[in-house]
Amino acid sequence: MINPFFKNHGPILLSKIISTLNLDIDKINKNQKVNDIKDLYTSEINDITFLHSKKYKDLAKNTKASFCITTNNLKNELSKNCTPLIVKNVLLSTSKITSIFYPQAIDDHFDDSCINIIDTKFNDNVKFGENVIIGDNVDIGINCKIGHNTIIEKNVSIGNECSIGSNTIIRNTIIKNNVKVLDNCIIGKHGFGFFPIKDNNIRYPHIGIVLIEDNCEIGCGATIDRGSMSNTVIGKNTYLDNQIHIAHNVKIGENTIIAGQVGIAGSTVIGKNVKIGGQAGISGHLNIGNNVEIAGGSGVIRDIPDNTKVMGYPAKNIREFLRDNK
Amino acid sequence: MINPFFKNHGPILLSKIISTLNLDIDKINKNQKVNDIKDLYTSEINDITFLHSKKYKDLAKNTKASFCITTNNLKNELSKNCTPLIVKNVLLSTSKITSIFYPQAIDDHFDDSCINIIDTKFNDNVKFGENVIIGDNVDIGINCKIGHNTIIEKNVSIGNECSIGSNTIIRNTIIKNNVKVLDNCIIGKHGFGFFPIKDNNIRYPHIGIVLIEDNCEIGCGATIDRGSMSNTVIGKNTYLDNQIHIAHNVKIGENTIIAGQVGIAGSTVIGKNVKIGGQAGISGHLNIGNNVEIAGGSGVIRDIPDNTKVMGYPAKNIREFLRDNK
Amino acid sequence: MINPFFKNHGPILLSKIISTLNLDIDKINKNQKVNDIKDLYTSEINDITFLHSKKYKDLAKNTKASFCITTNNLKNELSKNCTPLIVKNVLLSTSKITSIFYPQAIDDHFDDSCINIIDTKFNDNVKFGENVIIGDNVDIGINCKIGHNTIIEKNVSIGNECSIGSNTIIRNTIIKNNVKVLDNCIIGKHGFGFFPIKDNNIRYPHIGIVLIEDNCEIGCGATIDRGSMSNTVIGKNTYLDNQIHIAHNVKIGENTIIAGQVGIAGSTVIGKNVKIGGQAGISGHLNIGNNVEIAGGSGVIRDIPDNTKVMGYPAKNIREFLRDNK
Repeated sequence: MINPFFKNHGPILLSKIISTLNLDIDKINKNQKVNDIKDLYTSEINDITFLHSKKYKDLAKNTKASFCITTNNLKNELSKNCTPLIVKNVLLSTSKITSIFYPQAIDDHFDDSCINIIDTKFNDNVKFGENVIIGDNVDIGINCKIGHNTIIEKNVSIGNECSIGSNTIIRNTIIKNNVKVLDNCIIGKHGFGFFPIKDNNIRYPHIGIVLIEDNCEIGCGATIDRGSMSNTVIGKNTYLDNQIHIAHNVKIGENTIIAGQVGIAGSTVIGKNVKIGGQAGISGHLNIGNNVEIAGGSGVIRDIPDNTKVMGYPAKNIREFLRDNK
Repeated sequence: MINPFFKNHGPILLSKIISTLNLDIDKINKNQKVNDIKDLYTSEINDITFLHSKKYKDLAKNTKASFCITTNNLKNELSKNCTPLIVKNVLLSTSKITSIFYPQAIDDHFDDSCINIIDTKFNDNVKFGENVIIGDNVDIGINCKIGHNTIIEKNVSIGNECSIGSNTIIRNTIIKNNVKVLDNCIIGKHGFGFFPIKDNNIRYPHIGIVLIEDNCEIGCGATIDRGSMSNTVIGKNTYLDNQIHIAHNVKIGENTIIAGQVGIAGSTVIGKNVKIGGQAGISGHLNIGNNVEIAGGSGVIRDIPDNTKVMGYPAKNIREFLRDNK
Repeated sequence: MINPFFKNHGPILLSKIISTLNLDIDKINKNQKVNDIKDLYTSEINDITFLHSKKYKDLAKNTKASFCITTNNLKNELSKNCTPLIVKNVLLSTSKITSIFYPQAIDDHFDDSCINIIDTKFNDNVKFGENVIIGDNVDIGINCKIGHNTIIEKNVSIGNECSIGSNTIIRNTIIKNNVKVLDNCIIGKHGFGFFPIKDNNIRYPHIGIVLIEDNCEIGCGATIDRGSMSNTVIGKNTYLDNQIHIAHNVKIGENTIIAGQVGIAGSTVIGKNVKIGGQAGISGHLNIGNNVEIAGGSGVIRDIPDNTKVMGYPAKNIREFLRDNK
């Protein structure tokens, strides 16, 4: 995961983690330092990770993490070098610990570090409209344009030859070269991820970013949320029409074309050369293959293999759908 | 109905009402004063109300209103203390009379009372971004944030600990405590309510407001319209994802979760602890019970009882839908 | 097609057209001047046109154009006065030649001709909010209002008695009298039209405009794209609710009512007195008749004759749909 933005406040003392989780553990050296929180696969020694489902038992067997937030039922799936920290609600506990390592990744209040672009180093080498403001830790390449009233909040890197429209808001995002982001977009805000708690939901941190590869076009009114534990990615030369919503952790391949008002729910992976018709909706955590065509208005609730054309709600083979719906 | 905002221009002379409706009535004292226009249930003595459907005959029998705009067919349903004013088109006539009592509630031109927040009393106790402007009759509690380019138009009350994003527009709205409204939202504008008239439709007044209870989160790009004769309400700790449209008079209960691009049509009532998946649409004037789950992409056209899971278009029991659509 | 905005850079020497298309033609006088590029029907003598499908063979037989971009298979369909220029990809070649005549119609970077309205002739006769900016070649009638942060980019004509909301962006658009455009709209940007080319799609020019007739209302958050080779038209007294997307070349008739979150794909023609329910989607290149009613949530993929009520996905006769979906 490319993420140059969220500062890791680790190492954190194990004692702080244990007290945060309200655990009663004796036979552990609580003065050990924990470097970072990562998923099972990318964790290194002295990191903490989490395991909340048997689905991940193969990764759990091989994790290099020294500690793992998990349940009593799952603790035996872990590598022998990994000490389980037993909790009732793995995701809620993981959220609490991630918040210690990355306290800035929970809320997305407006960025008060923004100042008028006229007072920044970009005054000379960016072409910009009225009332453009820029936050901390922003980088912009050569030959870029930024439209009126646009807000480039903190933690944004924009490559060369990019054109950003007007009334657009971007944060926690890497944009490569020759990308067009049209008007009224909101890119890089946290996703719709939280633990539903009666009377006062708890948000979990989103430490991922949005990554937009070369030659993409993002249509007017798009919302593209940054990832929670991984990144949201728009592949090279992928074009999005107006009013599209891309949720957190979604990955879209290269040369894909997505028509207006499409919505893609969290953590779904979409292949290359995919065509998605207007108003189609795709559920979360699905795999959509390469060269897939999804007809406008479809509701996709299952994985789709490569080279398949689908239509309908729930979406199925397009010939079958049209035969059944003459 | 909580509505501290729209000023009632009453009392109005009955003679003015009669002439506005082009009625030819003799046996009435036209110098009587009419205090206000309300629905059948909330009207008091010396108020005017309206009755346009037999559905409301029980309310009509018991109304305290002194006058009622209605049709010849319906006039006998009214309480004996209530004088019928017989018209051809009840709703159009009601609109005309409401416009006399509440002339400011018809059009939503931009609010020219707005000035830069720097020049208001909020300069000291609100944390705000660039180019924030504030209209007349605005109240903001402690520890609030308001993002860049946001417009708080007239008639807005914001509680404590609220975070309003950037590029957002709010008017005629009460926001309670600890509410987050993200970027690019438009809250409190009139609904899509008008009388279709060939070549020049006539808008009717929207004298309701939007009420957002404690601990809610409203996602980016939301449009939440204020009510026409009642309020639009978002219950406590209800979370809305991005690009959601909530029409006028909709009431949503507590602890409800609504995913991206959902649309809810006018006057529908949604219960507590409801979950609505992405892109679902709900028709107007429906009752959706408590603890209901509506799958993403569903089109709901009928009432849904408590504790039910539905899917499909038209939405039906989810097990039935999935069985029929393997 | 009414289009006072895009300047034709013609006449262009035929030699330049031939070299741009990489053609190897000898027996032609390459010093001839070509005036303009138009469709088969509207072309005049000394214009160039294009033919990419047998569907248009009747128009091709009668075109007055002197030159036509077409394929070897189609060349014999042309009028005898029309010289074929044989290419492999007609649309891509047409795009290249259109770009020579209309170089400003390809990209929609922010308009850097905009200045604060206070510094324009409109300071005195338009009522405007904070931070309103106006581009080149803008005309505004009497008694108009323009809300805060709104950007009227170049090439816009607004009639009398119009109310434009806040945070709205308009370019390449003619708005007639007594029109309301609410907040956060984006009107007149290019459509989602391009040739998909691996690794770097090529946009084609959009030389049409958006035309909004008298007494219309455009709801919050609308995106209405301008036409590519014809105009996008919203007919008189047509009302659009919030969050609607109208693609390029769409034509909507008079007195039509469209509810929230509807999407209409490119080049579809919609009649008069049509009612479209919320979240309905209409595919491109369709004909929807007069007095049609389309239920909310419907997905329309075929033409609909006059006076028909449809529902479903794909949309069919509403009685049939409700009978099949009790």
